[in-house]
Amino acid sequence: METGVRLSQSLNVGFIGLGIMGKPMARNLLNAGFEVAVWNRTASRMDELVNEGARASGSPQEAAQGKDIVITIVTDSPDVEAVVLGEQGIIHGAKPGAVVVDMSTISPEVTRSIAERLKERGIDMLDAPVSGGDKGAIEGTLSIMVGGEESVFERAMPVFRAMGKTITHVGPNGAGQTVKLCNQITGALNILAVSEAVVFAAKSGVDLSKMLQAIGGGAASSWMVQNLGPRMVKGDFEPGFMVKLQQKDLRLALEAARDMHLPLPAASLVHQLFAAVEAEGMGDKGTQALVTALERLGNVEARQEN
Amino acid sequence: METGVRLSQSLNVGFIGLGIMGKPMARNLLNAGFEVAVWNRTASRMDELVNEGARASGSPQEAAQGKDIVITIVTDSPDVEAVVLGEQGIIHGAKPGAVVVDMSTISPEVTRSIAERLKERGIDMLDAPVSGGDKGAIEGTLSIMVGGEESVFERAMPVFRAMGKTITHVGPNGAGQTVKLCNQITGALNILAVSEAVVFAAKSGVDLSKMLQAIGGGAASSWMVQNLGPRMVKGDFEPGFMVKLQQKDLRLALEAARDMHLPLPAASLVHQLFAAVEAEGMGDKGTQALVTALERLGNVEARQEN
Repeated sequence: METGVRLSQSLNVGFIGLGIMGKPMARNLLNAGFEVAVWNRTASRMDELVNEGARASGSPQEAAQGKDIVITIVTDSPDVEAVVLGEQGIIHGAKPGAVVVDMSTISPEVTRSIAERLKERGIDMLDAPVSGGDKGAIEGTLSIMVGGEESVFERAMPVFRAMGKTITHVGPNGAGQTVKLCNQITGALNILAVSEAVVFAAKSGVDLSKMLQAIGGGAASSWMVQNLGPRMVKGDFEPGFMVKLQQKDLRLALEAARDMHLPLPAASLVHQLFAAVEAEGMGDKGTQALVTALERLGNVEARQEN
Repeated sequence: METGVRLSQSLNVGFIGLGIMGKPMARNLLNAGFEVAVWNRTASRMDELVNEGARASGSPQEAAQGKDIVITIVTDSPDVEAVVLGEQGIIHGAKPGAVVVDMSTISPEVTRSIAERLKERGIDMLDAPVSGGDKGAIEGTLSIMVGGEESVFERAMPVFRAMGKTITHVGPNGAGQTVKLCNQITGALNILAVSEAVVFAAKSGVDLSKMLQAIGGGAASSWMVQNLGPRMVKGDFEPGFMVKLQQKDLRLALEAARDMHLPLPAASLVHQLFAAVEAEGMGDKGTQALVTALERLGNVEARQEN
């Protein structure tokens, strides 16, 4: 990729939330030639991007003024409500016809209610949560699951292409969040699957690496077996994806399920087991630390140095 | 592959158990040039292979006489005990220095006790359970997880190569069965992961195929998402791998875990949920039918015709 030469883009963009994910995503927009105004609660996190050509804003409202697309990527439902609907929120700055693209992972229900509030002002919304981690954010290879009207989705495609690789329109507002929660349920249970296999092998006295290798190529294979299995047995609990964020997403899924009267027995179980990991002060560790809860339950150490 | 020309092999083989897996495996041995004597409880299942060059035997004992390798692939621990140690069992026919290769999925503990009994007569044993289903058995691409002495493993390699592709020596006697049970725990929980995602999406009103497509490429991906997910949402419950056999394997895993005082909360949960599938008379269906238990719990239909 050539640096120094930027194609100018016709859409201008506001970008709210420069965390581990947001910062590299905003950078990819700058590198793709978009004009980007940024805002972050901790203002100092804006400095680096300002040096790279972004404009700093004093509020979400200011970052939204005159923009075609306003992106938010913050932690939880109340954070999105605050930056979109709160005092000095996006809704007070964005022009009619603008698109608010929320790339946080939040409640599908809250998403639909925010979309309605924006619609009253003539502002469109897409929910567009991502998966792929900070690595995907840096490399611009995120998977983006998008809910909202098809025509609005098409208008936002140029910004999605600058940040992601697999971009799927999955349904109306809220559907992006629902699919993201499906992703989080499935991923968390796949980690639990590996964790139980690992402690079973360890307590049986079997070589853990050979076990992971043997099961990683067939019908039991998963991204988690292949990527987190080896870290688990080495005792490498660096995140990856933090336990406390996995817990937030499982909470969102279980709350949505509860509201629909849908029992999710395994998602509920893994949420409890991750609570045991948090109880040991490991909420900032990677999700592969789930194995430690199973190790304590079974009084077994599942480690292997090779 | 040329037909009509068979390389002759120096090892001669006894083969006990011509079920869905055993029959094509024995055929691959014949096609690779091994002399094969077969035995099956239902004698008529031997006819086809006899026409292809196998020799029919009147008992496991007779099938084992004078053989270098005697393979067993039957259903459960008591079946292996019967054909190896019972009246007219292999132990009464096999010569000292022969190798009994049990390719069934059975208890690691029972495996170790059979191996000891054989060892007293100078007969070696390998536990060598397989994964890859009838497709892998037919195509000779099975994964084979082998427990036993390294030198014995080497002696049996020519027969493994005729039946499988990924052949891994994982440890001493019983280790092959342990790793196979790790595979079954992980696979079953990966199916449960997909099932909960599918009912969550269905109850939320989201397109199921788009959801599976969106989650199938990232950190939540698994063989089960990609292969059984689409069958689940089509309501295609043909086996694949039957619920009742999955239940047998989970029972073996949970019994072994119980004997070791190892809690496996998720494996236990999925065993209960598969019991609900059996309660509906679907034990002969494929494991993807697990979704029906979650559907009943949540009073939701997770089907989509496209």
